Amino acid sequence: MEHTCIHLPASEMPRQWYNIQADLPRPLDPPIHPATGQPIGPEDLAPIFPMGLIEQEVSQQRWVDIPDEILTVLARWRPTPLVRARRLEAALDTPARIYYKNESFSPAGSHKPNTAVAQAYYNKREGVRRICTETGAGQWGSALAMACAIFGLDCRVYMVRVSYEQKPYRRVLMNCYGAEVLPSPTRLTQAGRSVLERDPECPGSLGIAISEAVEDAATHDDTKYSLGSVLNHVLMHQTVIGLEAKKQFEMVGDYPDVLIGCHGGGSNFAGFTFPFVADKIAGTHNPEVIAVEPAASPSLTRGPYAYDFGDTAGMTPLLKMFTLGHGFVPPPVHAGGLRYHGAAPLVSLLKAEGLIDAVAYPQTPVFESAVLFARTELWIPAPESAHAVHCAIEKARQAKAEGREMVIAFNLSGHGLLDLAGYDQHFAGKLEDLEMPEEELKRALAELPKPGGGQ
Amino acid sequence: MEHTCIHLPASEMPRQWYNIQADLPRPLDPPIHPATGQPIGPEDLAPIFPMGLIEQEVSQQRWVDIPDEILTVLARWRPTPLVRARRLEAALDTPARIYYKNESFSPAGSHKPNTAVAQAYYNKREGVRRICTETGAGQWGSALAMACAIFGLDCRVYMVRVSYEQKPYRRVLMNCYGAEVLPSPTRLTQAGRSVLERDPECPGSLGIAISEAVEDAATHDDTKYSLGSVLNHVLMHQTVIGLEAKKQFEMVGDYPDVLIGCHGGGSNFAGFTFPFVADKIAGTHNPEVIAVEPAASPSLTRGPYAYDFGDTAGMTPLLKMFTLGHGFVPPPVHAGGLRYHGAAPLVSLLKAEGLIDAVAYPQTPVFESAVLFARTELWIPAPESAHAVHCAIEKARQAKAEGREMVIAFNLSGHGLLDLAGYDQHFAGKLEDLEMPEEELKRALAELPKPGGGQ
Repeated sequence: MEHTCIHLPASEMPRQWYNIQADLPRPLDPPIHPATGQPIGPEDLAPIFPMGLIEQEVSQQRWVDIPDEILTVLARWRPTPLVRARRLEAALDTPARIYYKNESFSPAGSHKPNTAVAQAYYNKREGVRRICTETGAGQWGSALAMACAIFGLDCRVYMVRVSYEQKPYRRVLMNCYGAEVLPSPTRLTQAGRSVLERDPECPGSLGIAISEAVEDAATHDDTKYSLGSVLNHVLMHQTVIGLEAKKQFEMVGDYPDVLIGCHGGGSNFAGFTFPFVADKIAGTHNPEVIAVEPAASPSLTRGPYAYDFGDTAGMTPLLKMFTLGHGFVPPPVHAGGLRYHGAAPLVSLLKAEGLIDAVAYPQTPVFESAVLFARTELWIPAPESAHAVHCAIEKARQAKAEGREMVIAFNLSGHGLLDLAGYDQHFAGKLEDLEMPEEELKRALAELPKPGGGQ
Repeated sequence: MEHTCIHLPASEMPRQWYNIQADLPRPLDPPIHPATGQPIGPEDLAPIFPMGLIEQEVSQQRWVDIPDEILTVLARWRPTPLVRARRLEAALDTPARIYYKNESFSPAGSHKPNTAVAQAYYNKREGVRRICTETGAGQWGSALAMACAIFGLDCRVYMVRVSYEQKPYRRVLMNCYGAEVLPSPTRLTQAGRSVLERDPECPGSLGIAISEAVEDAATHDDTKYSLGSVLNHVLMHQTVIGLEAKKQFEMVGDYPDVLIGCHGGGSNFAGFTFPFVADKIAGTHNPEVIAVEPAASPSLTRGPYAYDFGDTAGMTPLLKMFTLGHGFVPPPVHAGGLRYHGAAPLVSLLKAEGLIDAVAYPQTPVFESAVLFARTELWIPAPESAHAVHCAIEKARQAKAEGREMVIAFNLSGHGLLDLAGYDQHFAGKLEDLEMPEEELKRALAELPKPGGGQ
C-alpha cells in the first residue's frame, strides 16, 4: 500500500500551544480604546472575557501548556491526519507533492472546536455560567455550542439572519448541542434594535451579530463573550494543527515549499502556518506562505492596514489590521466564514512585514477546484476551505508548467456537508463571481475610526 | 489523560474479510427462482452482478483476501476508532462500560463505503462501465457515487422520490461525486412506469427503486447493479468493522457482554457483530447480540421467516428471510435506511437459530437518546444509528438498576449531519411514534410469493 495518510500517534499530540508573539519581527500595535486613543488594559477586557484568556491574549511566552481537561476532549478526534493527495496529483499530472491536513474530522466538522473547547474550559474554570457568541455560516456557532455542552455552560448564538434562514441545518446542529440560536439582528439588544430601526428587513452581518453578542455579555454578570477568530489567543489555540503537521512532515522526511490556508478572520490560516512561519523567522526554512480570501471580501489584498473596530456597532476596542471598514456588508457569495471585514492583527502584521502573501479568488473557479478535490480525494470541502484547495491546485499547475518539483501543503479546515446548497447552485450555473466594487470599498473606508477622536 | 479513543495502528487493518457462511450452524436456504421454485445458480445472477461478487456471494471460505486496491482506499479513513463512552456513562451514572465503533469517519459519513468501494472495484476489474443502484435516505447512494468516482465508473442512483424532495443535500452530495440521481419512480423503466400508471403521485419506496435499478442493469450490456445491504457479499465486506473492533477490545483487555447494531437490511449490524458471533458459535464467548429496528418497520420482530422478493416488482430471486412482505410501504418515520421490508438471509438464519436477538423501538425515545449521546459524546448519530444508541442506553440503565457491571458495545454506523431535519422535528415535538398496523402486516404478508407457483 502507498503511504497516503500520515497518522501521528496519539502520544505525540502537542501538549503546548505555540505563541508567535514571542517571535514577531516587531511587537503588535496594541488594541486601543476608541474614545481615548490609549492602549487598553486587561481590565478593559474583563467584562467580556475570562482572565485566563486575557492573559493568553497579551502573553509573550513562546510555549503555553494545554491543560489536561482540554487535551482529553481534543483527543476524541486529534491528531488529525496529514494526507498526501496522490489521487489529486495524478488527476493534475503534476510533479508537485500535495499534502493536506484534514481538520474536518471534528464532531462539528471543522477546526473551530480547537479553540471553542479551550475557551469554554477557561470560562468554566472562572465560574462563568453562560457564553454568547455570533456565527455567520455556522461553523463557529456549532463548535462553541458543542464546547458548552461539554463543560455544562449555557450558550446563546446570534446567527446572521440570512444564514439562519438559508441554513436551517446549522441551527438544528446547535440545538442538538443544547444552544439557543437567534436570528440577528434581534430586538433583545440595543445594537440589534438600532439596526432594525434603520432597516427592518436587514439580513444581518457578522459585524452586527458580534455587536449583539458583546452587548449581551457586557450587560449580564454571569455571561462572557467568545470570538471564533481574529484574536491572538484564538489563533494560538489553533496552532495544534500546524504543530501536528510539522511532526507528520518529519515522519515522512518532507517539508513544504508552499503553505496555504483560507483566510476570513485568520484562525485556521494561522493555526496551520504559524509553526512553519516560526522556521521562516528563525531562518531555518523559507516556505512561501499564502492566505487565500474571496474576491468578494478581500481584506488582506485590497484593504489598508489601519485601526478599525472588530464589529459593526463600534463596541469593540480598535485593532490594527487589514480591513475593508467595519461598515462593510459582504455580498452574498458562498464563502461562509470568510466574509469578515477585517483580518487578525497577528496575520496582518506578518503580511505587512512581508512574511506571508495573500491572494483572492472569485467563487466559480473555487467551486470547480472543490469538485475536482471531492472526486479525487473524496472529502467535500467547506466553501471556505475550497479557497485553499483552489490555491493548492493553481500552484500544482504552476509546478507542472515549470516542470519542477514543489511540496504544497494546505489546510482542509472543514467539510462542506452542511454547505451543499452552494455546490447545488454551482452545478446549476447560478453562482455569480462577485467582486467588491471599488466605490463600496471607498465608502466603507471613509468610515474608518479616528482613534481618540471618535468615528 | 484517560484512555477514551482506542486507535488501531494502520498496520493492523484487517487484510481479509470474515465469511460467516463457513461457520453457520446449518447452510443458508438457497435463493430460488420465483417461477421454477428451483435454486438459482451463478449464471442467473451474471446479468446484474460481476462474477467476483457472485463467487463471494456463495463462497464457503472462512477468510477472503481484501485486494490491495481496496485496502488503499479504505486506509483513507480506516481503522476507525473504538471509543469508550465515558461521558455518556457518567451522564447515565451506570456501572456499565459502554464502547462504540465510530463508522461516521468515512467521507460519505457512514459504514456504507466499506462495501461500495469493494463492489466498484470488482465491477471495474471485469470491465463494467456503469453501475445502477437505488437509495432511500441516501447513505448508500452517496457511498456508491463516491466509490464510482474512485474507479472511474458512471453511476446512476434511483432515489426514493420522497427522499429526493426532502433531502436535497443528499442528492447534491451524489452530484459532487459525479453521479446521476433520479427521483424514483421514473418513466425510464417498465417497473417505474407501471407504478406511475397506478399512482402518478407515488412517493416511491426502496422496493420500487430496487426494481428500477435492477431492470436498468439487466437491460444494458455495459451496466451492472449494486446493492448496499442484504446480500452475503455485502455483509462480508462490512466485517472489517467487527474485525477491527475485536483487536481494539484486545488492546484494552476487555470483551463485550452485549453487542448492538441497528438493522435495516442488515449490513452494519452484521459487519460489526459477525466476528463476535463467530466466538459465540465456537463457544469461546457468549455475548448477547441485538439487532435494533424501528417499530414502524419491524421485519425481525414481527415478520415471518419466509421466502420473499427483495424488491417490489418481483424482479429479484426469492430469498429466505424475515420479511414484512415485498408490498410493504413504510410509514414516514425518520429511520432512513432501516425502512426495508426484509432482512439479510444471514441475519435471518442467525435469528431463527437463536444466536441473535432483535428489538424494535418507536422513534421518539430513539431521538431522545440520540440527543443525550450528542451532548455527551459529541457526534450526531444518523437516525438509523440512533436506534443502536438507544438500545445501548437502555442496557446501561438496566445494568444500573441491577447494580451490575456490563460491557456494552454498539456500532455508530454513521453521522446525522445530512439528517438534521429529523432532529428539528423532534425538538418541535412533531414526531409521531408510528407502529406498523396489524392489518397492514396481514395485507402485506398475504402477498408473499409461492415459490414455483407464481405470486
